[in-house]
Amino acid sequence: MAGFGWISLCTDYGCADGFVAACHGVIARIASHARVLDVTHAITPGDVRHGSVVLADTLPWLPPAVHVAVVDPGVGTARRGVALVSGDTVLIGPDNGLLLPAARALGGVRAAYELVEPAYRLPAVSATFHGRDVFVPAAAHLAVGVPPDALGPMVDPATLIALPAPVCDVNGTQIRVEVLTVDHFGNVALAAGVAELAVMGLQTGESVTLRWPTGAQSVRLGRTFGDVAEGDLILLIDSAGHLAVARRAGSAARHTGLKPGAVVELTITPDT
Amino acid sequence: MAGFGWISLCTDYGCADGFVAACHGVIARIASHARVLDVTHAITPGDVRHGSVVLADTLPWLPPAVHVAVVDPGVGTARRGVALVSGDTVLIGPDNGLLLPAARALGGVRAAYELVEPAYRLPAVSATFHGRDVFVPAAAHLAVGVPPDALGPMVDPATLIALPAPVCDVNGTQIRVEVLTVDHFGNVALAAGVAELAVMGLQTGESVTLRWPTGAQSVRLGRTFGDVAEGDLILLIDSAGHLAVARRAGSAARHTGLKPGAVVELTITPDT
Amino acid sequence: MAGFGWISLCTDYGCADGFVAACHGVIARIASHARVLDVTHAITPGDVRHGSVVLADTLPWLPPAVHVAVVDPGVGTARRGVALVSGDTVLIGPDNGLLLPAARALGGVRAAYELVEPAYRLPAVSATFHGRDVFVPAAAHLAVGVPPDALGPMVDPATLIALPAPVCDVNGTQIRVEVLTVDHFGNVALAAGVAELAVMGLQTGESVTLRWPTGAQSVRLGRTFGDVAEGDLILLIDSAGHLAVARRAGSAARHTGLKPGAVVELTITPDT
Repeated sequence: MAGFGWISLCTDYGCADGFVAACHGVIARIASHARVLDVTHAITPGDVRHGSVVLADTLPWLPPAVHVAVVDPGVGTARRGVALVSGDTVLIGPDNGLLLPAARALGGVRAAYELVEPAYRLPAVSATFHGRDVFVPAAAHLAVGVPPDALGPMVDPATLIALPAPVCDVNGTQIRVEVLTVDHFGNVALAAGVAELAVMGLQTGESVTLRWPTGAQSVRLGRTFGDVAEGDLILLIDSAGHLAVARRAGSAARHTGLKPGAVVELTITPDT
Repeated sequence: MAGFGWISLCTDYGCADGFVAACHGVIARIASHARVLDVTHAITPGDVRHGSVVLADTLPWLPPAVHVAVVDPGVGTARRGVALVSGDTVLIGPDNGLLLPAARALGGVRAAYELVEPAYRLPAVSATFHGRDVFVPAAAHLAVGVPPDALGPMVDPATLIALPAPVCDVNGTQIRVEVLTVDHFGNVALAAGVAELAVMGLQTGESVTLRWPTGAQSVRLGRTFGDVAEGDLILLIDSAGHLAVARRAGSAARHTGLKPGAVVELTITPDT
Repeated sequence: MAGFGWISLCTDYGCADGFVAACHGVIARIASHARVLDVTHAITPGDVRHGSVVLADTLPWLPPAVHVAVVDPGVGTARRGVALVSGDTVLIGPDNGLLLPAARALGGVRAAYELVEPAYRLPAVSATFHGRDVFVPAAAHLAVGVPPDALGPMVDPATLIALPAPVCDVNGTQIRVEVLTVDHFGNVALAAGVAELAVMGLQTGESVTLRWPTGAQSVRLGRTFGDVAEGDLILLIDSAGHLAVARRAGSAARHTGLKPGAVVELTITPDT
């Protein structure tokens, strides 16, 4: 195996402490040739769903790499650490549902291994920072050519922990769908895409009634923010393929109060 | 053309989502040799002026590079994407005024091209993420040696959109001047510099009356924060050459309530 | 001297302006081979203690490097800029106590030099941005092979400014100890570690009474967050070796109101 030139990191560590830098340092010491690509370190602390969506949306754009992801409220308990071989990448992190949507987006889990081999951990493993002591060292060893099956025993992919599927119920011309994420601009991504719109029969330019827990409004399905007037809501397919509620020159999340996990309802509006 | 070893990125994408990482990934796939230098991704969302000031202040310190900047409220509408050749760099981004102050700081626009050649975009271009799909691919192709004139038809630099000049009126010993930016420390940079101070005849060590919308105070022109007592305001020429209002061990912005776009008045105080 | 392949940066500059990028740019122009590892740029502005703790906790995990640190409220005044040779690294920054704890963690100060040689500064040195104009250029020159003693005259390490030691008084089965830092998750690191626990005779699994300025609670010494129920406080040795107050699936700092510099008291609880 030729190893990897890239290692990506995605965590909920924030950038205010030295946690991310310690991970970079461990990579530099084990795999000095590897380049590190930071996906983000601003996953909501402990929010495995948030991390899983960002990973699934982002990793397909990255070069072949070892992808390390750590959103790990169970660190130091019995939860497993795993390596998932998927496409031309290996995903490394806790077995808590974080990695599977990205593995699916990259072509599915070809093989899985539990990270138990001491030779590929740091000599002393802390109870609270497996990113530095377990996950990143495993990734760095893969980068220098250690084969994934050396990291530990094979894991049956069917035993990997999966998150519950988000709500997405299409019913004729209506859909009930869960908010997946809210981005930096306040765009609200929903757990639906072009497939669900096709089932509903909603076409670009047509309007729906959008109902959220605290309000309702008629919203048009457009292509981009500039398709409506400043301050207006718009539905669009976002750059990751999600149906999203956006607001021109403003924040749809602030306007609606929507947060990840909330459920909205869209109903095709008869022509007026 | 030899290409470029560096690509810089400056956006309003924030670092909480995977947007920046997707851009890094697209670069790695097209121009694996290129190193990426992140200017900042914390430009106020949609604030083209803010982005233009940070770019003009920062790019002169960078190595020869392709500089990609994206603050693009008009993404997906008819606004043009452009490449501006300037000094030993190429600036890439939307034609909305964002790039011109930096191009001026780098020696002026030698040539400009519109980014329309499909070969140098991603195969599928989204309506909302031209950073990933149009601007970064263009930059990565320049980095591997594609000449700028291959990106699309030449644009007359005189037709490029420019932002209105910020307020800066010197009148004898008085100046009315606009706030350009407020930095992380709360230092308030004004749209004036040593040239305007020379016209006013203000010397280091002398005082002026600073009037802002909600207050006024006598402030001395000094060199650095430590020239006044803790908590006191000071005027100084900042590290980018702007006249700035600062406060020792505190935030001048919080003290005065000043924000970008506000106008302040400075009047030379007769000796007391 | 062979120079260095890595330069690390740790500052209070934030990531919203172009300050950090300008530093990266200066490195790229002087030492194009050097790779930059950002420790963090989110040190609380002007908080030298905060910076010193993050540096001491993080730098031991990094590869051999020139480490530049800038938390420098005295920039442009008479305070010295220094280079400290320590282990296989050189630390560069202001002489205000910021660097010494990290130098100690790396094996102590072998030699110190004052940064006065103009050849290793930028041609024009601003009064407010010595990171860009003095510290980073010195680091970049070391990276290309300039020996540390070329940067300026030798400094007696005994004359380097040190921060006062944080409070840490063990008294039988009681300890009064200062809060060092609060991390991104709200974990509260104290100025004590396994040595102090040994003196107190506190064993894993045993409980203490934790008293903070506004409350008190019985807390158990455990290994990791998952050792207690959700929302409960726990004491543990964190990944940097500090005794820390943590809270499962929550923020111990928010729960207690503790901030750096506060003092807490721990008393071993008789068995109940």
